[in-house]
Amino acid sequence: ADDKLYHICIAAISVTTLHWCLTLCFLSSPVNFLDHTQHKGLAVAVYGVLFCKLFSLNTSPNPLPFIKDGKTREYWMILSLFYYPTLYYPLLACGTLHNQVGYVLGSLLSWTHFGVLVWQKVDCSKTPEIYKFYSLFTSLPQIACLAFLSFQYPLLLFKGLKGTDKTNASEDLKSNYYTDYVKKILKKKTKPSQTSSNASKPGVVERITDAVKSYIYTPEDVFKFPLKLAISLVVAFIAIYQMAVLLICRVVPTLHIVRKGVDEDIAFLLAGFNIILSEDRQEVVRIVVYYMWCVEVCYISAMTLSCLVNLAMLMRSMVLHRSNMKALYRGDIYNVYNRQRIIRPSRPALVCWMGYTSYQAAVICLSMIIQTLVFFICLLFAVFLVIIPILYGQNLILFRILRNMWPFWLMLILAGIVQHLAARFLFITKDAGTRDLKNRGSLFLLTYMLFPVNVLIGVLVGMWRMIISALFNIVHLGRMDISLLNRNVEAFDPCYRCYAHYLKIEVSQSHPVMKAFCGMLLQCSGQDGDSGQRVRDAEEGIQLVQQEKKQNKLSSTKRARGHWQLLYTLVNNPSLVGSRKHFQRQSSESFLNGTLNCATNEGSNKESKQRETAAVI
Amino acid sequence: ADDKLYHICIAAISVTTLHWCLTLCFLSSPVNFLDHTQHKGLAVAVYGVLFCKLFSLNTSPNPLPFIKDGKTREYWMILSLFYYPTLYYPLLACGTLHNQVGYVLGSLLSWTHFGVLVWQKVDCSKTPEIYKFYSLFTSLPQIACLAFLSFQYPLLLFKGLKGTDKTNASEDLKSNYYTDYVKKILKKKTKPSQTSSNASKPGVVERITDAVKSYIYTPEDVFKFPLKLAISLVVAFIAIYQMAVLLICRVVPTLHIVRKGVDEDIAFLLAGFNIILSEDRQEVVRIVVYYMWCVEVCYISAMTLSCLVNLAMLMRSMVLHRSNMKALYRGDIYNVYNRQRIIRPSRPALVCWMGYTSYQAAVICLSMIIQTLVFFICLLFAVFLVIIPILYGQNLILFRILRNMWPFWLMLILAGIVQHLAARFLFITKDAGTRDLKNRGSLFLLTYMLFPVNVLIGVLVGMWRMIISALFNIVHLGRMDISLLNRNVEAFDPCYRCYAHYLKIEVSQSHPVMKAFCGMLLQCSGQDGDSGQRVRDAEEGIQLVQQEKKQNKLSSTKRARGHWQLLYTLVNNPSLVGSRKHFQRQSSESFLNGTLNCATNEGSNKESKQRETAAVI
Repeated sequence: ADDKLYHICIAAISVTTLHWCLTLCFLSSPVNFLDHTQHKGLAVAVYGVLFCKLFSLNTSPNPLPFIKDGKTREYWMILSLFYYPTLYYPLLACGTLHNQVGYVLGSLLSWTHFGVLVWQKVDCSKTPEIYKFYSLFTSLPQIACLAFLSFQYPLLLFKGLKGTDKTNASEDLKSNYYTDYVKKILKKKTKPSQTSSNASKPGVVERITDAVKSYIYTPEDVFKFPLKLAISLVVAFIAIYQMAVLLICRVVPTLHIVRKGVDEDIAFLLAGFNIILSEDRQEVVRIVVYYMWCVEVCYISAMTLSCLVNLAMLMRSMVLHRSNMKALYRGDIYNVYNRQRIIRPSRPALVCWMGYTSYQAAVICLSMIIQTLVFFICLLFAVFLVIIPILYGQNLILFRILRNMWPFWLMLILAGIVQHLAARFLFITKDAGTRDLKNRGSLFLLTYMLFPVNVLIGVLVGMWRMIISALFNIVHLGRMDISLLNRNVEAFDPCYRCYAHYLKIEVSQSHPVMKAFCGMLLQCSGQDGDSGQRVRDAEEGIQLVQQEKKQNKLSSTKRARGHWQLLYTLVNNPSLVGSRKHFQRQSSESFLNGTLNCATNEGSNKESKQRETAAVI
Repeated sequence: ADDKLYHICIAAISVTTLHWCLTLCFLSSPVNFLDHTQHKGLAVAVYGVLFCKLFSLNTSPNPLPFIKDGKTREYWMILSLFYYPTLYYPLLACGTLHNQVGYVLGSLLSWTHFGVLVWQKVDCSKTPEIYKFYSLFTSLPQIACLAFLSFQYPLLLFKGLKGTDKTNASEDLKSNYYTDYVKKILKKKTKPSQTSSNASKPGVVERITDAVKSYIYTPEDVFKFPLKLAISLVVAFIAIYQMAVLLICRVVPTLHIVRKGVDEDIAFLLAGFNIILSEDRQEVVRIVVYYMWCVEVCYISAMTLSCLVNLAMLMRSMVLHRSNMKALYRGDIYNVYNRQRIIRPSRPALVCWMGYTSYQAAVICLSMIIQTLVFFICLLFAVFLVIIPILYGQNLILFRILRNMWPFWLMLILAGIVQHLAARFLFITKDAGTRDLKNRGSLFLLTYMLFPVNVLIGVLVGMWRMIISALFNIVHLGRMDISLLNRNVEAFDPCYRCYAHYLKIEVSQSHPVMKAFCGMLLQCSGQDGDSGQRVRDAEEGIQLVQQEKKQNKLSSTKRARGHWQLLYTLVNNPSLVGSRKHFQRQSSESFLNGTLNCATNEGSNKESKQRETAAVI
């Protein structure tokens, strides 16, 4: 498989297709392949292919296949950063055309890409770079994505021929998803206050299961991930896989070779550093090989642990994404951002939106490296200072230190227990439902007498603080949806800032109620008759009520109910207020927004809220 | 100065005094030397003396002066942790007696301690430990504290003889501080809403000056620090001083000796590692000495920087302490803790209260060590990779790397600029006060094409995230009043948890309104007449109004106004509600508490709040 020839051919084909696509696009529809109206799978797969290619650029000696010039490699590398997106673009563009010709072209292109890649990998599965099978492992996700495309395009073509293809702008808006969301809002919530008052303090087991559950993502009918977020998640998943392969292939084969190369010379070398493991040289070789095996096991465990941590974090991110987006739809801006913000597109927000997927992938890669390193060091300490000494009963340095300090530990533990017991039984009095202090004199005396001991406890507490904050930051380094900083300076964390801005754009552009309204507008304009009246009806939610009740007569009661429903919808989705026609003026908008947010945040009694809003409206 | 003889004598004196004090105490008043009623200076100074002694135990070969047994040193060390608090306890106890005998005893004791310590330091100012003047430097704060005590006790005695000494429980409550606080609350706030609406977005300069101002503590008349907090601050300050002296004395003299010992042999040694600085051996010695001087400068700068950082953090802590306590008095629990909590004493809270001062000191010491280490490494990198290469024009490794990567940097910067410009001018449209996206097709195309470049930018962003979070945590390691973790898991930071609990106890025990009320109760009970009626009047704030208006007639209008003032006070200090007599039942208390908190947190219209509360009451 001549890579050069293939690339020249495929580039020529791609450029032709692209040109043709663009011509068609300008004739039919804009190239909005990231819109919600598009087929999610296609965009996700193309992004996956592109990311795999980008990742393999790191190690390949010549970034552009038809130029082999080592001297100017970095310039070609920069060029390749733009070449590959262009190369794979037709795969994406063919899907946005929504006609048979596009699907045929897409099928052909994806088959070509897929065929050539598989042929290449089968033909020469071993490459000289890093590790003989590294190139093969790296291209597995790429092959999977291309296989998905090769399967999806013919399927779309088939559906299109059968006439069941409705993947266009109006189809998205006509789908039941948005109207279902609106219906769910308009449903009466029966017992929101009862659960909160009944909920007594949960037990430890319950809290642990809750915590575990919050890390497991379970799909919900009334929530669809935005396309950009879906792409980010898939790319992040591929990034984890690629980093794992890279970390394994970079280190483990080298360790294998070194382990195989250990011979009796190692005994002399170690003796040079005054390390004599054993008198027998064979024994020394055996011990060194065993230790190296331990190091290898530690490394692989650290890498696996890092993968698992990142996967768990990715899943937790999904849960949090969903709850954040739902909260923002509801207008709970304060809970999400910890301060008031206006949800609307702005320059930095748009830049963050553009970069979000890429940043997520890059941050995951970085966090994998750091985590593997830190976990590896921790595991090495654990193995060589704890496990091996216990198993073989030698080099018990750590245990000896701890044993020699036992009076110290005993004192600290006793001081802690004494303080807790004294606080519980001596100094706190429960009287008629309130708690107060008693025996103040003794309390002050104890505080003073234990001051020096508490300083020593404080040193331990401080160390624990260092460890836990470092560990927390390292574990959560790959997550963009939480800030690693204190709550008052959250926005200084660049990744969290990016996420916050990204959410703004996403929420302001994909509010389900807005979508449902747009869908109804389209429905109305498609039908004949008094469309002006129908549009007004649509905005006031009467269509939905009609759909539910199957009645056509428009009574005044119904109109009033429609007004009421509109009000209720707006109270629950205050970010929509700014988009209403007669609230476009800045001043009144911000005022109403403020009132609504205030009312929503309180969340105590819905009735008063509605009355307030009604007064304003 | 025979340390052994002195200690045996002083211990005997102390024990006698202590015994006598305790007898007196049980006759007169409990040993509540940490209460607000006490003279702050005495407690602070004694804690300072104790902490200095504790710190010097680290390095002294025999912790207890009258026992010199190297083998069982650690047991004596543990014993000394309880010996020294007992030794200095009479200094504290004499102040709590509030009579002339106590002050005479206190004066004698503090003079003895002070005299012996000064005599010791003058007599043998040089000690073999660490550095010859280390012991002298370490004992400076101790001498200062003892000098303060030796001055303060006679002063108190003098005041007592003149009859102006009022330092007892009732004096604290009679002071104007608490009534001033209540008066300030009852004053009408004229323009709280106007300022918030008028405040447009502040400029950059304004925000920077605001940030700087928030680090500078300016005393306020209507706020006094609780005694425990004052002790913590002074102890923390002493800890910074002691750690600075220790860090300097441990390292700098050694570096001096090494620098002096550099001779021409160093050239051979370096040649052994293939490092040839110069052909001329004298030149090599000169260069090595110069480099070692650089290292020393870096170390001292790092240590100084760490001191300054910790001092700034301490000052910022004071500002935050005050605002937190004021907010909790007001009932803004949500803003301080980021969740609802009940402000009342509990077992863990009391344990944290006991340990707070010690933990603060220990954490400051730890943070000084870590900060000095990290800053030292950073400064070394800066000096040897940036400053020296620029000054001497050699070893420009870093600059060469950066120069070789210029096309890469240029590309990243260009990509960033293109995205920002495109977002600003191409994709955002301002229409009738709202902003929306336009040119969606181009936006999606740009996002896709810049995906690979953005991954590279993402790597830089991720690195920046790592650096900034690590630096933030290291700089703020010594501060207990902020959490180093994310806002959702704040409480897992042990130091912040301790602070949060500490605040609970402090606020629940020292609410100024409660104190003002207690003061009035005492005044009433001191006078004859219908005290029952007076107590009721007192609780309803009528006394205060009387004091202000100098009228004695009690009309119904006044009583109504009294009710109103009580209500207003309670709304502004909801944590007091639980302490009222007829709200002691758990259920109604929590209910009212909830209502009040809710009302206070909203903070929009005071009138409706008061009406609500009135309805409940």
